[in-house]
Amino acid sequence: MATVSQRLAELGIVLPAAPAAVGAYVPVLRFGNVVVTSGQLPWQGNQLAYTGQLGKTLTVEQGYAAARLCAINALAQIQAAVGNLDAVKQILRLEGYVHCAPDFRQQPQVLNGASELLNQIFGDKGRHTRTALGIHAMPLDAAVQLVVWAEVESSPAG
Amino acid sequence: MATVSQRLAELGIVLPAAPAAVGAYVPVLRFGNVVVTSGQLPWQGNQLAYTGQLGKTLTVEQGYAAARLCAINALAQIQAAVGNLDAVKQILRLEGYVHCAPDFRQQPQVLNGASELLNQIFGDKGRHTRTALGIHAMPLDAAVQLVVWAEVESSPAG
Amino acid sequence: MATVSQRLAELGIVLPAAPAAVGAYVPVLRFGNVVVTSGQLPWQGNQLAYTGQLGKTLTVEQGYAAARLCAINALAQIQAAVGNLDAVKQILRLEGYVHCAPDFRQQPQVLNGASELLNQIFGDKGRHTRTALGIHAMPLDAAVQLVVWAEVESSPAG
Repeated sequence: MATVSQRLAELGIVLPAAPAAVGAYVPVLRFGNVVVTSGQLPWQGNQLAYTGQLGKTLTVEQGYAAARLCAINALAQIQAAVGNLDAVKQILRLEGYVHCAPDFRQQPQVLNGASELLNQIFGDKGRHTRTALGIHAMPLDAAVQLVVWAEVESSPAG
Repeated sequence: MATVSQRLAELGIVLPAAPAAVGAYVPVLRFGNVVVTSGQLPWQGNQLAYTGQLGKTLTVEQGYAAARLCAINALAQIQAAVGNLDAVKQILRLEGYVHCAPDFRQQPQVLNGASELLNQIFGDKGRHTRTALGIHAMPLDAAVQLVVWAEVESSPAG
Repeated sequence: MATVSQRLAELGIVLPAAPAAVGAYVPVLRFGNVVVTSGQLPWQGNQLAYTGQLGKTLTVEQGYAAARLCAINALAQIQAAVGNLDAVKQILRLEGYVHCAPDFRQQPQVLNGASELLNQIFGDKGRHTRTALGIHAMPLDAAVQLVVWAEVESSPAG
């Protein structure tokens, strides 16, 4: 079976440096065999790649790309916390917050940008639970905020 | 003490088939002794029984019924994950998201539809923590979205 | 190293009685070595000290104070659950929900009122992950709702 880094390479994904926190907190933390990230925004380097609201200034395709980018940033955080993404035993839970207009209903389609990427990278280990919520006001006007919970091996794979 | 299925029968509740996920994820997952559901909507068969916004197109009574229905669907998910609801040691946490008008303040009364049902079914084991939030835009225009976290016995009761 | 109660005393903080739940649930719960609170509101005695919306009727400074007060109430809950805040091994996660106008973007600055207090009290053990969301409708018109997750020692410190 391909390792996570092989699958990332096949998908042409280079994990960025794990984005810093926007406040007096840390971006990721491990307790027991669980890793949880802070809310990840669609950072690309020092800039938010997607700002604005779905159903108003952004298309579903742009939202999908924003959610995918949040997931990539979350993976960078998890890698920073556990050293090696092959130590991920299961992606447990995605909390997906979509910045949108009041009549927008396609939060699931937007968040599939994160979910489908995790499925591609981790296979069965990438099958996760999810919440999908429409949010009316978001820090820094970000299009999506995403939290990832993962279970990792007791002793991280070398 | 009555079993969970006895109490469900007393309440006239027949657990439905566990609703499918609305996207590229799974509806429930167990890790260690914790089970967490994806966001449950008020499905009744293939239809959402309650759509619209509290404080606008829905009454508190309808919201209460929607939250109760979400909880029933969540129990169907937990049963699918652990095989037997008597294996539930404790309902840990409810995340309650209420689709509502900006000036609606009775999210707690709406979510009591879920909380009171869990208390009736599980007694002390049903006493849970909760968040209650007003949400301005919801997937499929659902009235309520509910996540249930539960602790289960290490080896599920037969 | 100073104990938590010494640091609370230095900061002039007297923990209140743990606020009661606003519905059919419990305000805090422990499972395994994890403690999670229900959504905490800025109660001061029997009154909400901060109601209304950030970016509309409340300043960032008032929001900061509201978040700090929610954190104090959360600590009262955790103390009620584990008996002694010195048993806290790590603050794991803050869920920060800020009641605000649609164009408000400073949820992080508001929630720093909670984060900075936890850092002051717990030092490295206070470094936590965080979500920061803008919410359009809140129970009882509260300015902030805050959930705190903490890891505690297996056998609470005497």
